[in-house]
Amino acid sequence: MSQILQRRGAPFQRPMRFEDVVEGVRSELDEVDNALLANLESDVPLIPAIGNYLARGGGKRVRPILVLLTSRLCGYEGARYITHSCVVEFIHTATLLHDDVVDSSQVRRGGPSANARWGNEASVLVGDYLFAKSLWLLAADSDPRIIQAVSNATVYLSEGEVLQLINEFNLAASEKSYLDVIYRKTAALIASCCQIGAILGKASSEREQALTEFGRNVGYAFQLVDDVLDYTAKSERLGKPVGNDLTEGNVTLPLIHLYRLAGEGEKQTIRELFLEPNGNPDGRLQIILEMMKKHGAIEYTMKQARDYAERAKAILKKFETSHHQQALLSLADYVVEREQ
Amino acid sequence: MSQILQRRGAPFQRPMRFEDVVEGVRSELDEVDNALLANLESDVPLIPAIGNYLARGGGKRVRPILVLLTSRLCGYEGARYITHSCVVEFIHTATLLHDDVVDSSQVRRGGPSANARWGNEASVLVGDYLFAKSLWLLAADSDPRIIQAVSNATVYLSEGEVLQLINEFNLAASEKSYLDVIYRKTAALIASCCQIGAILGKASSEREQALTEFGRNVGYAFQLVDDVLDYTAKSERLGKPVGNDLTEGNVTLPLIHLYRLAGEGEKQTIRELFLEPNGNPDGRLQIILEMMKKHGAIEYTMKQARDYAERAKAILKKFETSHHQQALLSLADYVVEREQ
Repeated sequence: MSQILQRRGAPFQRPMRFEDVVEGVRSELDEVDNALLANLESDVPLIPAIGNYLARGGGKRVRPILVLLTSRLCGYEGARYITHSCVVEFIHTATLLHDDVVDSSQVRRGGPSANARWGNEASVLVGDYLFAKSLWLLAADSDPRIIQAVSNATVYLSEGEVLQLINEFNLAASEKSYLDVIYRKTAALIASCCQIGAILGKASSEREQALTEFGRNVGYAFQLVDDVLDYTAKSERLGKPVGNDLTEGNVTLPLIHLYRLAGEGEKQTIRELFLEPNGNPDGRLQIILEMMKKHGAIEYTMKQARDYAERAKAILKKFETSHHQQALLSLADYVVEREQ
Repeated sequence: MSQILQRRGAPFQRPMRFEDVVEGVRSELDEVDNALLANLESDVPLIPAIGNYLARGGGKRVRPILVLLTSRLCGYEGARYITHSCVVEFIHTATLLHDDVVDSSQVRRGGPSANARWGNEASVLVGDYLFAKSLWLLAADSDPRIIQAVSNATVYLSEGEVLQLINEFNLAASEKSYLDVIYRKTAALIASCCQIGAILGKASSEREQALTEFGRNVGYAFQLVDDVLDYTAKSERLGKPVGNDLTEGNVTLPLIHLYRLAGEGEKQTIRELFLEPNGNPDGRLQIILEMMKKHGAIEYTMKQARDYAERAKAILKKFETSHHQQALLSLADYVVEREQ
């Protein structure tokens, strides 16, 4: 893998935190935020309203940061990361909008969800607008390889959403099928962010593959931690109710692992709590959390997440030492250490 | 416009009916149908099920026929019309799926709608899959100008859907704003079908613009007639309940024209029937239809449709006489004469 090494940028000494990473790309992220808003301008009234609501609602901008940092790592100095940050962020946001309709979620990012505020109809249609606008941005930029990368990711993403729907309330789901779902619904798009960066930087095919693989591993870790936080986070930090997956029948690794290790009596309790969700949801969550504690289900899931993050970092360590490499390493750590 | 003329194909004598047109492209349409099904294959179970249901459900395949005929008119002899027929048909079908969710429709094309059969969740997500697959097909074909044409149409389409939602139950909507909605939600995609044909046939920019304009006019006519049929057709022929727009608060030209001409007492009745839809829907439809008859609202709308179709035909008549030109002229006639 010596070809992967390329001397670029100054070596970096002090370990970086995620806040440092964000601070280091603050002006670029501001450009992305401005472009997100500009691309939501439309003479159709509801679109800017919902668009601004979503764009200002924040989110961690992990995908734009990945597009930017991987492109800079590969020596790209231009501004096309702005367009492609909008592409991936719009696709991601469209998915959130449609997810909230599918799950009838009322809360997202600490406020009422778009469907709670404007109705399911508006959320479905504005989600479609965001998809359309992504395609429009891709067409305007007109890079066949990026269009291909994003289109592959988008097909995976929509398949992942359908798979998740099919697997609802299936306690017997295997860890393998769970990993397949999170690859499609999360890791594929995050991998494509890193691939876009590599393409922007005209990286060698070997480096492009390595960065895509880095993104894939970060994506797995990201979703595994999301699924842990859904059980363990504080609602106020998470910006949405804890225990959501339990309520909605979304069977994720903590529950899969618990159900695998549970005794017959416990299995019976889990089935009753899960499949006949009467009584108060907090009480149910407490019982499940106790069992997860006993069987180490959260630790097990976090271990998988850390393993993916370590694999991501190992790939990146083969690259030349640089500021952007360090920032990406910190991002991989942040993904597993975050509390929201 | 003499540059537009190009001698191609044999002159055609006998006036063609739409059935003749379809019969003439039967083998190409079969190829399109096969490709639609092949592109709906997925290892995710629900996707082929819903996909096949939709693909076999028929529909008139007006968009694929337009892609094919305009490409052949411009001398294209290859098979890329198959890919692009799938692109436009998937985008169209995704819109139908999401429309039915937005309107809570139970019936489509003479059978239960996909959302009635598989639920709103599946319809939203499979619609997203169809959008994603369109992007994927565009990426695989990789023609920047076609990608641009489709992306413009898709943005218009999603804006049109949002505009229609905003205008719901607005009896004071103007004819101008109605025409703007139907341009975006229907005519823009149909225009892009003809533009794709021109691009496939490497037509001159003048011919490409003329064919796009032809498609735009056909698209207007198509939607105007759709909106008439929603009031006047027989349910069994239409494949969905008549009077749907009235029930759903979708204010189309027949109602706009009626409300414009109605006296104060009639306006009051219309408002009551429309905004407080108690009582039986058939009775309500009958009262509205009587008033439309009195004020010539259906005739007025049909007149607009015929005008658009005539404009479309006038554009096409500047092209050289050929079998494909005749077929496209027949299609423009069919759009206004059809009963379903």
